[in-house]
Amino acid sequence: MNASPAAAQLLAEVKFDAQGLVTAVAQQHDTGEVLMVAWMNGEAVERSLATGEVHYWSRSRRRLWRKGETSGQVQRLVEFRLDCDGDTLLLLVDQHGVACHTGRRNCFFRAARDGALVEIAAPVVAPETLYGSHPRG
Amino acid sequence: MNASPAAAQLLAEVKFDAQGLVTAVAQQHDTGEVLMVAWMNGEAVERSLATGEVHYWSRSRRRLWRKGETSGQVQRLVEFRLDCDGDTLLLLVDQHGVACHTGRRNCFFRAARDGALVEIAAPVVAPETLYGSHPRG
Repeated sequence: MNASPAAAQLLAEVKFDAQGLVTAVAQQHDTGEVLMVAWMNGEAVERSLATGEVHYWSRSRRRLWRKGETSGQVQRLVEFRLDCDGDTLLLLVDQHGVACHTGRRNCFFRAARDGALVEIAAPVVAPETLYGSHPRG
Repeated sequence: MNASPAAAQLLAEVKFDAQGLVTAVAQQHDTGEVLMVAWMNGEAVERSLATGEVHYWSRSRRRLWRKGETSGQVQRLVEFRLDCDGDTLLLLVDQHGVACHTGRRNCFFRAARDGALVEIAAPVVAPETLYGSHPRG
């Protein structure tokens, strides 16, 4: 990776884990809605900062992933924050469309009610519309 | 662990990692402020649901930890949510005082500005007031 000097300075502050990853929380910048949680490696951080579009590392597919690359549901990076321990990122983003691969606005649509999980949000778009036969992204 | 039947039903939906842990995002329920990110094991989930006070698993101290047990900065659990993959929790909480061990309201007080991290929030209480000579909690 050839990080820019500016990105290199930021990257040096991030404590990546043994797998080279850091947890990233994506929050809609204006409403405060927590959209999703995913993982980033150094390159994902660097590309997100350089392009202004959020990139993650897919642990299941073992590759870099630009959010929305298949679905069109991109995340524009508004602000990049790091926590006190340096091991978690908070990304303030502007989410185009829906963040969740199920077609829901955010991934946290199940909530505990009387000891059971219930769905508190319905899909706003059909997942097939987002992905067709492609893997999610 | 002797989880109640209700907690057992919820716990069965959570996908704990190889270390038996799950990522938990704590968000202030009324303002939407993301306060902190920490880890829970099954017992932390069960006790949080049973007592209404958020418990975490400390990876560094390798023990269960009731948020605020030393500092008094407790988190009352308002809502427990699970994401689409079952591997991340979103806890809507009512944070008493400050969430961060540095004395700041939340842990994400460093933000990227022109390629460098700058502090965007100051402590509102002195850490010594919270912990004295005790480890943080």
